[in-house]
Amino acid sequence: MAGNSFGNLFKLSTFGESHGVAIGGVLDGCPSGIEIDFEAIQTELNRRKPGQSAIVTQRKEPDTVEFYSGIFEGKTTGTPIGFAIHNTNQKSHDYTHIKDSYRPSHADYVYDQKYGFRDYRGGGRSSARETASRVVAGAIAKQFLSKMKINAYVSQVGNMKMETPYQELDFSLIESNAVRCPDPEMAAKMEGYIKEIKKQGDTIGGVISCVIQNVPIGLGEPAFDKLHAELGKAMLSINAVKGFEYGSGFAGVTMKGSEHNDQFNQDGTTKTNYSGGIQGGISNGMDIYFSVAFKPVATIIQPYQTIDKDGNFVQTKGKGRHDPCVVPRAVPIVEAMAALVMADFSLLNRTIKANS
Amino acid sequence: MAGNSFGNLFKLSTFGESHGVAIGGVLDGCPSGIEIDFEAIQTELNRRKPGQSAIVTQRKEPDTVEFYSGIFEGKTTGTPIGFAIHNTNQKSHDYTHIKDSYRPSHADYVYDQKYGFRDYRGGGRSSARETASRVVAGAIAKQFLSKMKINAYVSQVGNMKMETPYQELDFSLIESNAVRCPDPEMAAKMEGYIKEIKKQGDTIGGVISCVIQNVPIGLGEPAFDKLHAELGKAMLSINAVKGFEYGSGFAGVTMKGSEHNDQFNQDGTTKTNYSGGIQGGISNGMDIYFSVAFKPVATIIQPYQTIDKDGNFVQTKGKGRHDPCVVPRAVPIVEAMAALVMADFSLLNRTIKANS
Amino acid sequence: MAGNSFGNLFKLSTFGESHGVAIGGVLDGCPSGIEIDFEAIQTELNRRKPGQSAIVTQRKEPDTVEFYSGIFEGKTTGTPIGFAIHNTNQKSHDYTHIKDSYRPSHADYVYDQKYGFRDYRGGGRSSARETASRVVAGAIAKQFLSKMKINAYVSQVGNMKMETPYQELDFSLIESNAVRCPDPEMAAKMEGYIKEIKKQGDTIGGVISCVIQNVPIGLGEPAFDKLHAELGKAMLSINAVKGFEYGSGFAGVTMKGSEHNDQFNQDGTTKTNYSGGIQGGISNGMDIYFSVAFKPVATIIQPYQTIDKDGNFVQTKGKGRHDPCVVPRAVPIVEAMAALVMADFSLLNRTIKANS
Amino acid sequence: MAGNSFGNLFKLSTFGESHGVAIGGVLDGCPSGIEIDFEAIQTELNRRKPGQSAIVTQRKEPDTVEFYSGIFEGKTTGTPIGFAIHNTNQKSHDYTHIKDSYRPSHADYVYDQKYGFRDYRGGGRSSARETASRVVAGAIAKQFLSKMKINAYVSQVGNMKMETPYQELDFSLIESNAVRCPDPEMAAKMEGYIKEIKKQGDTIGGVISCVIQNVPIGLGEPAFDKLHAELGKAMLSINAVKGFEYGSGFAGVTMKGSEHNDQFNQDGTTKTNYSGGIQGGISNGMDIYFSVAFKPVATIIQPYQTIDKDGNFVQTKGKGRHDPCVVPRAVPIVEAMAALVMADFSLLNRTIKANS
Repeated sequence: MAGNSFGNLFKLSTFGESHGVAIGGVLDGCPSGIEIDFEAIQTELNRRKPGQSAIVTQRKEPDTVEFYSGIFEGKTTGTPIGFAIHNTNQKSHDYTHIKDSYRPSHADYVYDQKYGFRDYRGGGRSSARETASRVVAGAIAKQFLSKMKINAYVSQVGNMKMETPYQELDFSLIESNAVRCPDPEMAAKMEGYIKEIKKQGDTIGGVISCVIQNVPIGLGEPAFDKLHAELGKAMLSINAVKGFEYGSGFAGVTMKGSEHNDQFNQDGTTKTNYSGGIQGGISNGMDIYFSVAFKPVATIIQPYQTIDKDGNFVQTKGKGRHDPCVVPRAVPIVEAMAALVMADFSLLNRTIKANS
Repeated sequence: MAGNSFGNLFKLSTFGESHGVAIGGVLDGCPSGIEIDFEAIQTELNRRKPGQSAIVTQRKEPDTVEFYSGIFEGKTTGTPIGFAIHNTNQKSHDYTHIKDSYRPSHADYVYDQKYGFRDYRGGGRSSARETASRVVAGAIAKQFLSKMKINAYVSQVGNMKMETPYQELDFSLIESNAVRCPDPEMAAKMEGYIKEIKKQGDTIGGVISCVIQNVPIGLGEPAFDKLHAELGKAMLSINAVKGFEYGSGFAGVTMKGSEHNDQFNQDGTTKTNYSGGIQGGISNGMDIYFSVAFKPVATIIQPYQTIDKDGNFVQTKGKGRHDPCVVPRAVPIVEAMAALVMADFSLLNRTIKANS
Repeated sequence: MAGNSFGNLFKLSTFGESHGVAIGGVLDGCPSGIEIDFEAIQTELNRRKPGQSAIVTQRKEPDTVEFYSGIFEGKTTGTPIGFAIHNTNQKSHDYTHIKDSYRPSHADYVYDQKYGFRDYRGGGRSSARETASRVVAGAIAKQFLSKMKINAYVSQVGNMKMETPYQELDFSLIESNAVRCPDPEMAAKMEGYIKEIKKQGDTIGGVISCVIQNVPIGLGEPAFDKLHAELGKAMLSINAVKGFEYGSGFAGVTMKGSEHNDQFNQDGTTKTNYSGGIQGGISNGMDIYFSVAFKPVATIIQPYQTIDKDGNFVQTKGKGRHDPCVVPRAVPIVEAMAALVMADFSLLNRTIKANS
Repeated sequence: MAGNSFGNLFKLSTFGESHGVAIGGVLDGCPSGIEIDFEAIQTELNRRKPGQSAIVTQRKEPDTVEFYSGIFEGKTTGTPIGFAIHNTNQKSHDYTHIKDSYRPSHADYVYDQKYGFRDYRGGGRSSARETASRVVAGAIAKQFLSKMKINAYVSQVGNMKMETPYQELDFSLIESNAVRCPDPEMAAKMEGYIKEIKKQGDTIGGVISCVIQNVPIGLGEPAFDKLHAELGKAMLSINAVKGFEYGSGFAGVTMKGSEHNDQFNQDGTTKTNYSGGIQGGISNGMDIYFSVAFKPVATIIQPYQTIDKDGNFVQTKGKGRHDPCVVPRAVPIVEAMAALVMADFSLLNRTIKANS
């Protein structure tokens, strides 16, 4: 209700501020009997964590997750999985520049208006640090969904857009570069561009594309909880996201029905896949693919004017070590949220028929 | 859970198939004391209903709503509002062509796979007819939110895209033409184009843009239930929608942070509004604006090949009277879903502070 | 949220006031493929309806249910089942005596305080008429749960308490008398007593006991949503209920652990069943049994003093035809609510294990 | 959904097994701006913790709560409050006697059946240790509800029943004795009896009564979520509870309507209060009072026969230090759950009227 939970049956509740004692969550409804690969979870966290390459923030956070419950002798027990990631550097910062003033295009102002005051340290609850908890739960969801393959990658940075259709990409190259773009040439260009932007103390937006393969037919619910509607909500709930499209997306509006309709093969697969693997909100067994637009990070290392609590103009400047472009680190977050959606609908789909 | 409810506090549950006895819903959590303007509700239904102009389907459905409960002496009582719209022509059709075969890019195939069988008449539950119930509830939400102004309009049909920023549009012109585009010249072109497409027995996609004004600061929840995430889900839950973007949207990815950041005025408003009225998932008092992409309608009046239940190819053809372009009729649906989201978050926001 | 829905996966939302146009509901999440026995549904409604015998209210309401959706060719489709029962006599009454004054131990006063005003006709939403919708949904739940046997019966009226343990009762006798007590001798005494009470213009309380047999092991969730906690909530949500106990109940507090513990047989069944078929909130396969206490109906046909809206004392008297004792008609309601709980947990239990 | 969350707007999710790393929870929806009295929270935990007196289990657990988030500069921020209580002695025990066999009237057997296996250490998730997390959240709820007074106390142990009406009790005496009975003479008798039971290696049941004062009018929702239905569910969700009654309760069934009806005073209060402060599921401003029945603890320190996983009979005996009677330590749990219910409905009630 207060917005800190996601999912119905496979349900994650998160807590934690950027510079509080710890962030973490409770994953409730995770089925019993999943053998947990703890290393795989930490690997996902490492893909998200700061300091992993030259084009991301150079902050140091080990992001080590501790599990408190719900796993026994290496397997999930069916009871809630409580976990926490302690914030190691929560007292080391100087927040004078944000305590009493509002950073443009950040949530500082609206938090004060909504709640009456805010934990201003590092953005508090509005910090993308919260997404580390999502990555933990998403990694468990992936293990539950072991047959599905969920691959996200950076397909655009600023104006640099990779036009290759996903079918022609080698997903094993995603992790071969710091940008997480499976086209090494394009990746090199993007990386150079991000470094340039960083030098300017500026930031740039980007797009992450995601492909889900080996999806069973029937996931998703007809009216409000269409599979793509939940995927869309999941993605739009990630910090800095401004748009979501799946299948033919915005480009599909210029097509005619006679072109856009996906003709059937005899086995129920389709010759084309403008539908993006989803018909009427329900998976049809074809690949699901979608794209997520991220705005440029709001924190820039340039002087700017803003207002304080009393409405006075103040002169300030972004401090600290921030991401010049958020998309390389957001790839595992997109995958995690996709996995949470797919796990939730997988469980729900078990309840659809009278005899099953 | 099964996807037929929307909202947390201001909650709509819908029921009904295209050609069953009736469609309808229960609106639960609607506050007491709203004076209901029944004519305004019917006006919204009329904006959605078939047969209203030459560029929409020529089916005849009066779409008259009956209220069963929750309104007494013209005012909402705070108890659930049950309502129904009887289907007047549920027995008159011939469905031989869809009973045993699967229309491409429709939900026929996935329904059979998911549920074991389906009500095939007119698409059953997967028909956009279900959205009439949303329009009823949305019309009540609008009356609850009387101070907010929610205006949607058609901004693109096929390749015809209106580039005028919404600030320069006269929303009172939206209803002046059959397309629901507030630029009369563009509207005329779009209308001509849709007629041409119709003549071809084909269909075309489009974009609806929506602007919400006079929004109080503070609506939306920080983590998963960000205001734009719920708006996105709401829009993506409408039949035929393929994409959603708000504020700078997909175009924002090419911008730098130094350009994209919305600088504050002293009163907390911002000089630009790339944020689209939402910061960190919470409304900041500026106009909210977003766009919704609709694919071309799947039903075309051309011969096509498809498969039957046994995987045999069959030759068939769309029958009946269908929309060549869905966006003119979808405008009130977009507004209705936006109103439901805003009403829900308005109620939720009353619970945020200890003393209020 | 606003209290008009019950269940998570097998979910009923109800609407309707005693003397509005119609009452009804939406049953969402009912699995597809259940062959519906419409007569059995009406039979359950008839067990609840007024005028069925000399010891219940003599009001005439046919209580005929119309189904609007979710059932096709005699089977549930997996989509929401919308239904309504039209109120046939909603305009015929005179409510002068309750419009402006508050009946003692009714909800009139608190409704006015909570909502600002109320639909005063026949109690509006607070009338037990709402439970007819529960009976419809419960009858469908019973058909889904066809292997479980759910039998409720009257075990106490005023001081007349049947001490026979349920194992010695013949449930086929429940419907053999107007009281719905399976002990014919006791039933005759209870009936005589209720008639005497009725003659006095007074009312009397009672207890309904319920037994659920053939329950699979494993239904119910460990912490907050224990099987008996949901059963308790379900029963306490029925009008006029003041208490709930299961298994050894309140009498169990006087027992020692050494007596109360249910020793196992080798097949996992237990020698005694003080647990009432539930251990740690989860069904253990033994019979579930519980009791529900109903207060005397508040409407009495005797003169009494009360207050009006302005706090003046007024002299008034119950009018119309009311139940002298609510338990005979409440038997099908208890069964219906029990069926809803068992259906919900049955579906939920399909989602518990990783591989199933 | 999986049963580990409670509440809608003021929502607690708990995690943790008896002998895992930690137990804890996330309290979501707690309003911003509550000044937290940390000592008061620890005091509540101390009322529940083992080892506090001679009549409770002599296990040693400090039960110190750590807060991870949601509180800043001593006040709640409106974001989720994450907390944990580390289990200090999770590795010290010998569980050979329960690992492969099923204790009678415990959840061991049903957990294995439901989940396929279980964390058998100390009962795992089914241990009442989980309720410590409820006490933490309940203590915060109490601080939010500072004007309401919630007092629970032991009113019965075995056959020893205190008949004094709550109005004649001095609640300040509740904490004056180890039993938590506000009648010192009765308390002494109960204490002696519990010691005797303990000497026998046996256990005994009891009743806790609870009174909520200074309740505003209007809390609770009409149909399924009646205030007493949620209170009932809350209480029945506590380990070992077998029954719940409020107001006149089970005794009310023997009363006539003419006696039972609560006549109004001119200010809307009532002369009697058989209703227990709740009419039609909504608080009427009078004191709310209810009783909760607890069975005798299942763990007894006597030899007994039971079965192992393969259905063989095995001879065993309870080990460790267990409570001879659960009610003295359950008093703060009853209060905590009551506070959670009242907090949730208090927030919900802010959303009822259109203008408020």
